[in-house]
Amino acid sequence: MNWHLPAADDTPAAEVEREAAVWRPLAEAARELVDLCVMSDVDADEVRAAQADVEAAVARLRKVRRTQTLGQQHLTGGRRRPWGNPVIGLRNPIAPPLQVVSDATGRAETQFRCGAAYEGPPGLVHGGVVSLILDQILGHAVGAAGRPGMTGTLTVVYRQGTPLGDLRAEAWIDREDGVKTWAKAHMVGPDGVTAEAEGVFILPRHIRERFS
Amino acid sequence: MNWHLPAADDTPAAEVEREAAVWRPLAEAARELVDLCVMSDVDADEVRAAQADVEAAVARLRKVRRTQTLGQQHLTGGRRRPWGNPVIGLRNPIAPPLQVVSDATGRAETQFRCGAAYEGPPGLVHGGVVSLILDQILGHAVGAAGRPGMTGTLTVVYRQGTPLGDLRAEAWIDREDGVKTWAKAHMVGPDGVTAEAEGVFILPRHIRERFS
Repeated sequence: MNWHLPAADDTPAAEVEREAAVWRPLAEAARELVDLCVMSDVDADEVRAAQADVEAAVARLRKVRRTQTLGQQHLTGGRRRPWGNPVIGLRNPIAPPLQVVSDATGRAETQFRCGAAYEGPPGLVHGGVVSLILDQILGHAVGAAGRPGMTGTLTVVYRQGTPLGDLRAEAWIDREDGVKTWAKAHMVGPDGVTAEAEGVFILPRHIRERFS
Repeated sequence: MNWHLPAADDTPAAEVEREAAVWRPLAEAARELVDLCVMSDVDADEVRAAQADVEAAVARLRKVRRTQTLGQQHLTGGRRRPWGNPVIGLRNPIAPPLQVVSDATGRAETQFRCGAAYEGPPGLVHGGVVSLILDQILGHAVGAAGRPGMTGTLTVVYRQGTPLGDLRAEAWIDREDGVKTWAKAHMVGPDGVTAEAEGVFILPRHIRERFS
């Protein structure tokens, strides 16, 4: 159940691709803006001019506001197109965004980049951002294995600082017992594993009913 | 040791305020943009025009790029001004941003709002965002108590979904033993506690040396 892939939505593929082609470039420009909000060193006049440009974009986009969030909007047919997701959402500038590859055994993997906007300790990825990303990929693992659910407990053990830059994360199923699934994950930087995570996921009712 | 307050920086207060007055409004406009990237429903032409506005801002801000991240830049005097922090940073559009109040006993509290850009399951805050925020406020608690450090282990137990909207988080010191400090935190929504967290923090070397 690759609920994280746009194709899982019941909108025709061509329409999904057309929408993606409209919104993806806006989100990409907004990601550059986010990075520059923390990395630019231009003078005050230039900052104010940039602010006016951003406010012009805001005024345009504000003309029509959806009444439901994207997560609610894309629930059609019980499936999801998580374009608003803060880790993988193509429309969400908060998301790096991660592109996760997974298989039916529950292995999930992603390579991504964390820039300055994800910094906690100097030069390092914020420990909470590490937990955010590991939570997301754990969810992909249990989803891909056909045992999706919301996180019940998440434990992250930090082995070393995670340097800003190119990173990798992997997740896999550890064990299953009734409605519970235990999945593990780790994040890998240039000097090896930086953090390890375990998540306990509870099967949602509609999946349990399908099993029984 | 309120390392999360701008005043802890050794730049004169008036200069810090002047810089904040330049960058804060840009980040606030960018936060509105982030929200609209997931919530706007304007047509394709309007999206493209907004994208052009954002790209104009990006072109301006890109003219001068700092060589160090803000976290590295603001280390002067061993202290920090975490304007780039993805949870509390006034210059970081990813940050809601949280404003955390803490005292020397290690109690930390914050009231904040999570909009659509923080959505995981439909209508709910992403579980990883919950862990990101709880990790941050745990860090404030140990910092305020004079026992700062990087997170060693973070455990989050999710009690119920955290609805998007107005939320509160609190953290406090649970116990100390040598170089380790255990802190606890929870997040509170309109229907009570949504998630509980425990963090184990290890005192950094320079603080240990001051104690011995």
